[in-house]
Amino acid sequence: MKRELVTEMIIEKKLAKGTSWAAIAEKVGKSKEWTTAALLGQMALTQEEAGIVTDFLGLSEEANLALQQVPYKGSLPTAVPTDPLIYRFYELINVYGTTFKELIHEEFGDGIMSAIDFNMDMQREENPNGDRVKIVMSGKFLPYKRY
Amino acid sequence: MKRELVTEMIIEKKLAKGTSWAAIAEKVGKSKEWTTAALLGQMALTQEEAGIVTDFLGLSEEANLALQQVPYKGSLPTAVPTDPLIYRFYELINVYGTTFKELIHEEFGDGIMSAIDFNMDMQREENPNGDRVKIVMSGKFLPYKRY
Amino acid sequence: MKRELVTEMIIEKKLAKGTSWAAIAEKVGKSKEWTTAALLGQMALTQEEAGIVTDFLGLSEEANLALQQVPYKGSLPTAVPTDPLIYRFYELINVYGTTFKELIHEEFGDGIMSAIDFNMDMQREENPNGDRVKIVMSGKFLPYKRY
Amino acid sequence: MKRELVTEMIIEKKLAKGTSWAAIAEKVGKSKEWTTAALLGQMALTQEEAGIVTDFLGLSEEANLALQQVPYKGSLPTAVPTDPLIYRFYELINVYGTTFKELIHEEFGDGIMSAIDFNMDMQREENPNGDRVKIVMSGKFLPYKRY
Amino acid sequence: MKRELVTEMIIEKKLAKGTSWAAIAEKVGKSKEWTTAALLGQMALTQEEAGIVTDFLGLSEEANLALQQVPYKGSLPTAVPTDPLIYRFYELINVYGTTFKELIHEEFGDGIMSAIDFNMDMQREENPNGDRVKIVMSGKFLPYKRY
Amino acid sequence: MKRELVTEMIIEKKLAKGTSWAAIAEKVGKSKEWTTAALLGQMALTQEEAGIVTDFLGLSEEANLALQQVPYKGSLPTAVPTDPLIYRFYELINVYGTTFKELIHEEFGDGIMSAIDFNMDMQREENPNGDRVKIVMSGKFLPYKRY
Amino acid sequence: MKRELVTEMIIEKKLAKGTSWAAIAEKVGKSKEWTTAALLGQMALTQEEAGIVTDFLGLSEEANLALQQVPYKGSLPTAVPTDPLIYRFYELINVYGTTFKELIHEEFGDGIMSAIDFNMDMQREENPNGDRVKIVMSGKFLPYKRY
Amino acid sequence: MKRELVTEMIIEKKLAKGTSWAAIAEKVGKSKEWTTAALLGQMALTQEEAGIVTDFLGLSEEANLALQQVPYKGSLPTAVPTDPLIYRFYELINVYGTTFKELIHEEFGDGIMSAIDFNMDMQREENPNGDRVKIVMSGKFLPYKRY
Amino acid sequence: MKRELVTEMIIEKKLAKGTSWAAIAEKVGKSKEWTTAALLGQMALTQEEAGIVTDFLGLSEEANLALQQVPYKGSLPTAVPTDPLIYRFYELINVYGTTFKELIHEEFGDGIMSAIDFNMDMQREENPNGDRVKIVMSGKFLPYKRY
Amino acid sequence: MKRELVTEMIIEKKLAKGTSWAAIAEKVGKSKEWTTAALLGQMALTQEEAGIVTDFLGLSEEANLALQQVPYKGSLPTAVPTDPLIYRFYELINVYGTTFKELIHEEFGDGIMSAIDFNMDMQREENPNGDRVKIVMSGKFLPYKRY
Repeated sequence: MKRELVTEMIIEKKLAKGTSWAAIAEKVGKSKEWTTAALLGQMALTQEEAGIVTDFLGLSEEANLALQQVPYKGSLPTAVPTDPLIYRFYELINVYGTTFKELIHEEFGDGIMSAIDFNMDMQREENPNGDRVKIVMSGKFLPYKRY
Repeated sequence: MKRELVTEMIIEKKLAKGTSWAAIAEKVGKSKEWTTAALLGQMALTQEEAGIVTDFLGLSEEANLALQQVPYKGSLPTAVPTDPLIYRFYELINVYGTTFKELIHEEFGDGIMSAIDFNMDMQREENPNGDRVKIVMSGKFLPYKRY
Repeated sequence: MKRELVTEMIIEKKLAKGTSWAAIAEKVGKSKEWTTAALLGQMALTQEEAGIVTDFLGLSEEANLALQQVPYKGSLPTAVPTDPLIYRFYELINVYGTTFKELIHEEFGDGIMSAIDFNMDMQREENPNGDRVKIVMSGKFLPYKRY
Repeated sequence: MKRELVTEMIIEKKLAKGTSWAAIAEKVGKSKEWTTAALLGQMALTQEEAGIVTDFLGLSEEANLALQQVPYKGSLPTAVPTDPLIYRFYELINVYGTTFKELIHEEFGDGIMSAIDFNMDMQREENPNGDRVKIVMSGKFLPYKRY
Repeated sequence: MKRELVTEMIIEKKLAKGTSWAAIAEKVGKSKEWTTAALLGQMALTQEEAGIVTDFLGLSEEANLALQQVPYKGSLPTAVPTDPLIYRFYELINVYGTTFKELIHEEFGDGIMSAIDFNMDMQREENPNGDRVKIVMSGKFLPYKRY
Repeated sequence: MKRELVTEMIIEKKLAKGTSWAAIAEKVGKSKEWTTAALLGQMALTQEEAGIVTDFLGLSEEANLALQQVPYKGSLPTAVPTDPLIYRFYELINVYGTTFKELIHEEFGDGIMSAIDFNMDMQREENPNGDRVKIVMSGKFLPYKRY
Repeated sequence: MKRELVTEMIIEKKLAKGTSWAAIAEKVGKSKEWTTAALLGQMALTQEEAGIVTDFLGLSEEANLALQQVPYKGSLPTAVPTDPLIYRFYELINVYGTTFKELIHEEFGDGIMSAIDFNMDMQREENPNGDRVKIVMSGKFLPYKRY
Repeated sequence: MKRELVTEMIIEKKLAKGTSWAAIAEKVGKSKEWTTAALLGQMALTQEEAGIVTDFLGLSEEANLALQQVPYKGSLPTAVPTDPLIYRFYELINVYGTTFKELIHEEFGDGIMSAIDFNMDMQREENPNGDRVKIVMSGKFLPYKRY
Repeated sequence: MKRELVTEMIIEKKLAKGTSWAAIAEKVGKSKEWTTAALLGQMALTQEEAGIVTDFLGLSEEANLALQQVPYKGSLPTAVPTDPLIYRFYELINVYGTTFKELIHEEFGDGIMSAIDFNMDMQREENPNGDRVKIVMSGKFLPYKRY
Repeated sequence: MKRELVTEMIIEKKLAKGTSWAAIAEKVGKSKEWTTAALLGQMALTQEEAGIVTDFLGLSEEANLALQQVPYKGSLPTAVPTDPLIYRFYELINVYGTTFKELIHEEFGDGIMSAIDFNMDMQREENPNGDRVKIVMSGKFLPYKRY
């Protein structure tokens, strides 16, 4: 069973059951960010985690097995995303990309922020002028190896 | 004088002078994130700010005027960035894009995180396993207008 | 049930029933512009609105649920649209894009016209030389945050 | 003299002189929308109009001649625009393109809104929740010829 | 029923029946050029025309309804066509495109040849050195509106 | 001397001299269609023809030599043309491409219309509803060789 | 029945029957090069040839009819081929393309080698250092028409 | 000195001198195919060969050195070539690519025709129906290594 | 049976059986690198090898035959891979590509490293700072033929 | 001074001086692989290393400063490389990419091979059937963080 199919089934089951990503994440015992990414086909689950999801949403045994495999990652259908919410993040990279680069190099030297040893947290930030989305990203700095 | 040329001159002057983006930002009186983006050709400066930069780096009067114009934004030469540091951010959108979308909609309903009424902060996060890059983004949530 | 499938079913049901987008919009109690976009898979409906559409067109319960989810937006199959009617709008951006940019900045300063806090209205404009399509767009101006 | 070069010179002269597109348009005796598009290299000027612009901004005779030629149109450097202000219009086509199509066909039958027999007007719309950009577009409806 | 499916069915039925586009066009009472384009999914038919085609080729009632809808136009699977016959036309635009532009502007001023108020005719031109394909195109000249 | 440079010089000289493509063609003794394409860098001229053009427009000897070389053909800067006049021809291929294919095969069998053994003629067609652009294309039919 | 489906069926039947392209070509009475291209969906067969193939491989009557239609040509899924064997030919054009152009023009003047009035032959060339693939192409030279 | 510049200079010098690729190749002592490719920037010359070309065409010492370096290969400005002569070769790959693949595998098994251990020869083939371009390609067959 | 389908079935059977690529490779008697590539649809198997795999995983006879055919190679869905693990290899080419080129030419002269007469080996390299992936590639150097 | 210009100057100076990358690397005291990549504009040098290179090749002080800046990485002009030597590496990813993925995940679990904490070594491997290029890559395995 292809992972895309499992993702599609999870979305349908979640909708029919009327549950939320946050609720599923709590059952799995991981953050809502990691769990949602995993269930949308971007991360591999352990046997135990896959079992919890399979039971909770009523998936098949084949889906259970597929969830434990490392997926081919990448969740977007086009190189430049068309969805306005996702495009705004792409735009930030387009506008601030060279700024990220300059400031990280100024602080750390040559290297990158890891997208693997990485975690993030999304919260609502209350504000009288309209609430804000607050995203905190944290990735290990990896210096280029010199040899 | 085209803005790309002004950007190029700023980078050379900064290099020759041996100063940093953080130091220039302090003179301008804005955050290092906003100032770097502005000097890399992504934001318009006020007459006062442009004057400070022009004096500090020794730019021409034409450059001074150009800094006060709203630039054609977009700082990357290709749709999918080739630079590894910048690519990691693109990869995060590819892997986590649909997760951002699901969690923001779950919390706020239909709408987007503004990339205009937006600010960010980049800091070093000390860590015994290797320091981390911490980026905090905050953007106003904008609900889709219904009519 | 994937939203694309719901869109396809809505188009078929509307055709079989011989009704119009304007008529459906009146039932939903929203403008014909917003309603058509929503039913073509670009907006989320409330439970009540989805119910009205489901009853009127005879959709399934699964489709009803799907209509209440925020969709992955973007209604065109290619980056440059091939359909002549839609291409004309793309051409207007190509020819007038920098003009929009200059005039909005001249009037408002740096920022954008929101595509989220946005509404539009399409009307027939009678004219002896041939009727005209009149489109009025209104979007909130969002100034770039400085920090 | 290539038209791109003339456009660049006009932008520099306008900046140095501290004038605005609206002021130049008034001198030329055309709308600010048409005049800006023309001076950004998208329309041909008459001998008289080109003369007014040449005198007012102090352009060369070669530039004067070039302004009277029909240019190769298209003002954007990439198929999907990177500038946030211009991108929002592209996004509107992506989200509302099929809606435009359905509603125009519902009202007029098969055909298009002309992008040639076309005019537009951009105004500030005052609003206590924040001023809005109002754009009115009007294009002749052209029915597909049947033969 | 999606229009692509109707097109596919028309091609199969025509093949099985052993008829030609010219013969169908005669029944419909339109030119062979317009009729073929319409049946290949590029034009909308009137109720009467759709009825004639439905009867003649033995299509379903759903297909009949679909033929009366304005289709999403564009008949080629790639931006640069791979089929040699169709590519030759693309090549003509690549080689002669700027020539078309110069000569039409020289004769008519700024504007375009309409692709909507347009008709064409394809004929065999007998020639002792090998017969030739003769295509006559006629499109209304549309001058750019000045305002 | 690169051919692009020669093309640019020809356009400038023609503009300064106030002459037309049709007038140059008459001097060269070829059709205005072929001559314009040749001078826009798409065809090679004979020594005699190049000499006439060189004398008439006052080009250099290097340009004279360059005009006699077979150029690398293709006159458009992008795969999908952005100029509205040229795009209309691209749109015709998109909408009518499969129609061209079907009708030519129906009349001639498998093969193509040559874009090499090809000529065309562009004329104004007077019409009370607005003059029309008439283009007549004639290309030899080339059947696929079977072996 | 779509031609792609017929191609797929032919490949399966050939595999199941354990026959070769050369053997089928012999039955059809054409070269192995032309026959393989035709059966891979690039050429139209005569009624007689289609009948031979249909009988030999056991295809349906619908497939038989489809083989007699002129197909939409182009056998590769991407503009730059990913298969190493096919890529090598693309690489030859990339490396030798301008050489082909210079030498053919030097020998023949302006024009092209026809890809329609064209045939080719592929043979094994025995060689002690490892056998070689020998491909002989022959295409009629077509001079550009001057008019 | 960049190789592209050397190529450009060679083309100009050859044109001014009125010599041919075949004549230069004879001086160099290599085939006209290899020599032309080398001088168009696709192959490295030995010191001796570079010296002959430098003397014959009157190039600078810097150009002489550059000719002896291995160039970054690839002679075409776009992935799909726009020049009609070169496009025909691309079309042959599009139409015959899968045929090449099938027949070479049928004869040799899994592997490729080398584009490195490769040579070719272009000749005029006289023919009463019009002369033909004959191209003979010979490349070593390389079987995939199994391990 | 299309090879993609066989690949998909192999992945499912392997998952259901709980076996590994290394284990299958041992049964086939080839390296784990070659065997995995072959089973993912990139290499042809001999009759004997295909039989072993068919028996071990319980595939159909059609799949067995398909495994013995040379596949259309290329295992990635996009030109720039989106999966982070695979992208890192693409990034290495982007960053080190010109370095590979310079050093191989410095050592061997003009030519390439064969990707056909090629083998590779992937091993875990134990390391106190975190284990490393070690990949050894070996490809025959092929010098460009001069003729 | 832009880094591309520094790279170009280094290549010219190295050529004029007749030295090799290996010789420069020895002077710098780093591997030939890292040094070549750095001098081709992909890595930042320390002040000391930049000084050695500047002295050895006779670069300007501006170039010296530029070499110490972290460059915008990416050394190839197109997404799919056209140079045959570099393309072979791209082809390996296309053919073996999913194999790399499966085998690394089988051995290490979910994660990637770092392209930052990475080194490589290129050697000649003598072989009676023709010498081989041997490349050893070693990158730290980075497991996906779970949170």
